[in-house]
Amino acid sequence: MHSLNVDLGDRSYPIHIGNGLLARAELFAPVVSGRTVMVCTNTTVGPLYADRLNATLREAGAKAVHTVTLPDGEEYKDWPTLQRVFDALLQHHCDRKTVLVALGGGVIGDMGGFAASAFMRGIPFIQVPTTLLSQVDSSVGGKTGINHPLGKNMIGAFYQPQLVITDIATLNTLPDRELSCGLAEIIKHGAIADTAYLDVVEQNMPALLNRDAELLALVVKRSCEIKADVVSKDEREGGLRAILNFGHTFGHAIEAGMGYGQWYHGEAVGCGMVIAAELCKRMGRLSAEESARLKKVVIQARLPAMPPKLGVNKFMELMAHDKKNDAGAIKYVLLNGLGKANTSPADEALVRQTLLELGAGD
Amino acid sequence: MHSLNVDLGDRSYPIHIGNGLLARAELFAPVVSGRTVMVCTNTTVGPLYADRLNATLREAGAKAVHTVTLPDGEEYKDWPTLQRVFDALLQHHCDRKTVLVALGGGVIGDMGGFAASAFMRGIPFIQVPTTLLSQVDSSVGGKTGINHPLGKNMIGAFYQPQLVITDIATLNTLPDRELSCGLAEIIKHGAIADTAYLDVVEQNMPALLNRDAELLALVVKRSCEIKADVVSKDEREGGLRAILNFGHTFGHAIEAGMGYGQWYHGEAVGCGMVIAAELCKRMGRLSAEESARLKKVVIQARLPAMPPKLGVNKFMELMAHDKKNDAGAIKYVLLNGLGKANTSPADEALVRQTLLELGAGD
Repeated sequence: MHSLNVDLGDRSYPIHIGNGLLARAELFAPVVSGRTVMVCTNTTVGPLYADRLNATLREAGAKAVHTVTLPDGEEYKDWPTLQRVFDALLQHHCDRKTVLVALGGGVIGDMGGFAASAFMRGIPFIQVPTTLLSQVDSSVGGKTGINHPLGKNMIGAFYQPQLVITDIATLNTLPDRELSCGLAEIIKHGAIADTAYLDVVEQNMPALLNRDAELLALVVKRSCEIKADVVSKDEREGGLRAILNFGHTFGHAIEAGMGYGQWYHGEAVGCGMVIAAELCKRMGRLSAEESARLKKVVIQARLPAMPPKLGVNKFMELMAHDKKNDAGAIKYVLLNGLGKANTSPADEALVRQTLLELGAGD
Repeated sequence: MHSLNVDLGDRSYPIHIGNGLLARAELFAPVVSGRTVMVCTNTTVGPLYADRLNATLREAGAKAVHTVTLPDGEEYKDWPTLQRVFDALLQHHCDRKTVLVALGGGVIGDMGGFAASAFMRGIPFIQVPTTLLSQVDSSVGGKTGINHPLGKNMIGAFYQPQLVITDIATLNTLPDRELSCGLAEIIKHGAIADTAYLDVVEQNMPALLNRDAELLALVVKRSCEIKADVVSKDEREGGLRAILNFGHTFGHAIEAGMGYGQWYHGEAVGCGMVIAAELCKRMGRLSAEESARLKKVVIQARLPAMPPKLGVNKFMELMAHDKKNDAGAIKYVLLNGLGKANTSPADEALVRQTLLELGAGD
């Protein structure tokens, strides 16, 4: 088992990563012992892991364990579905000491975390991420929330869990396409902060795709460390944290332009990183070799490297609406050589040319 | 003008209190200059003060001022109504730098604050409280939220404003019954923390009821100081802050038992303080004179001092459901002499006897 601490002062918390941790009652006990627990999961993950987790929570000394099972999918990341969590909490007479455990991927983590932040203005919260993407991304950073019909993640809170338990064994039931989405963020962590890590990921890609538990645990740990390091310096996204959005400006445009759910988030980010690297090359920030290498790793991870034919105008328009922008100017995350990232504006003509040459369409 | 600072580390903020402050652009400028502003108000307060406030905000350098007007009343303190604030923010392309200004009483402050806490995970927030109750109570403490069909204030956040502007002149349009509700909290502040202040309130009650602006400003300031002192020692309601609930355990039971809206919150708290003082007398914590004095001040403030005939069993049952309870045991806020409060359990038979003798019915 690997453990690391996310260092956020009095909101610090540990992440434990390993194979079979869902059965380790002693890891849950410090938070759940003597407490009522509400497990929030979905119709895909619940049937696979809820019984095992509930037994472990009881063994860990939980006074009572209830479960609320939400429909699976980004389209349910909305208020009416969140309301079902509040309904369940109140119907079971939960109070401020009740612990909410989010068992699932990013959507469940975001919704469970937001429910925990808002129920009685805040109750303790444990994340049990079951997708590679949520294990390396949303388990660090405290971003929670739901979508609004006019925008993704528009309503939420910064709210830290008290504990994250990452059981690598849950990745055995993860569809291939979702495994690749997790790899997109892993590649990103190497690209923005650690070329040695990028080497490891690149060299071990076949084993990672083959779900080697030992390697996956190592990679999840290193990705969490990199993200935790950035987040601990900028918890509420004042500046530095923006580098975690490498590939996301283009990626969000792809997701929105294709209609949410057509391209998965990780796929859009994978492609977004290739576009951003091409832009960096044209700006003289990356060598042709570095840009080509990043593209190759993305393809190795079975992620798309070619942008969809949305048309350059549509791309630019969608990027102009990104939540991260500051008073209208598009902020790009750019690399100054692999392993070093910063935010910067970019010449619009050059961005358009890059998109056009990569095949985004007129 | 009086000013005080609510001391909460990097979440500290100033409260300015005085007559005519809605017209003082220089007070708003530090927060709104160069920003887009969304004013959140209701159908009662908006027509009276929104135009004046909007002009002041423009004079203070706001880039644009939009207004969202919600229906007035506790029954609209719910998700569908809150959603209208998010709709307005997104329709006007507001971003993370937009400032939300809550213009109204406690419901608008709670909803505006929660909307500000959750929109894009948190935007700056100014409170402009227009009722005496919100000026002395919800303007300090950072409690925001909405109701759930199964309970009041069950969904929300601790979220501090960046600035509170309290214009005493807005009290000129406040109905008498609501003025008395503010006085209930003011009496409470004296009773739990400052007998000299209770003297001032008692001696000046006729002038306060007559809306003497100078006196009201002084009293609002002193009440905010007392509450700020408690809150700064216990921002997230770990312990000490509970003393602010003096009168509220009985009060909440009255509100819930009569049906919300029948008794106003301040009326229920006024009566709740009389019941609590009678209980303290029977426990040997207050003298007969002290208990009688508190009752007299409550009556002076035109608040009810006699409990409604809910029946003692119903009272006990409603109190057992209070959100503040810890694992089932009812927590009472009790006085050890006027000016000194703590939380404590109480003998159930004595509570029942007190309620019965005060006329709460069999």
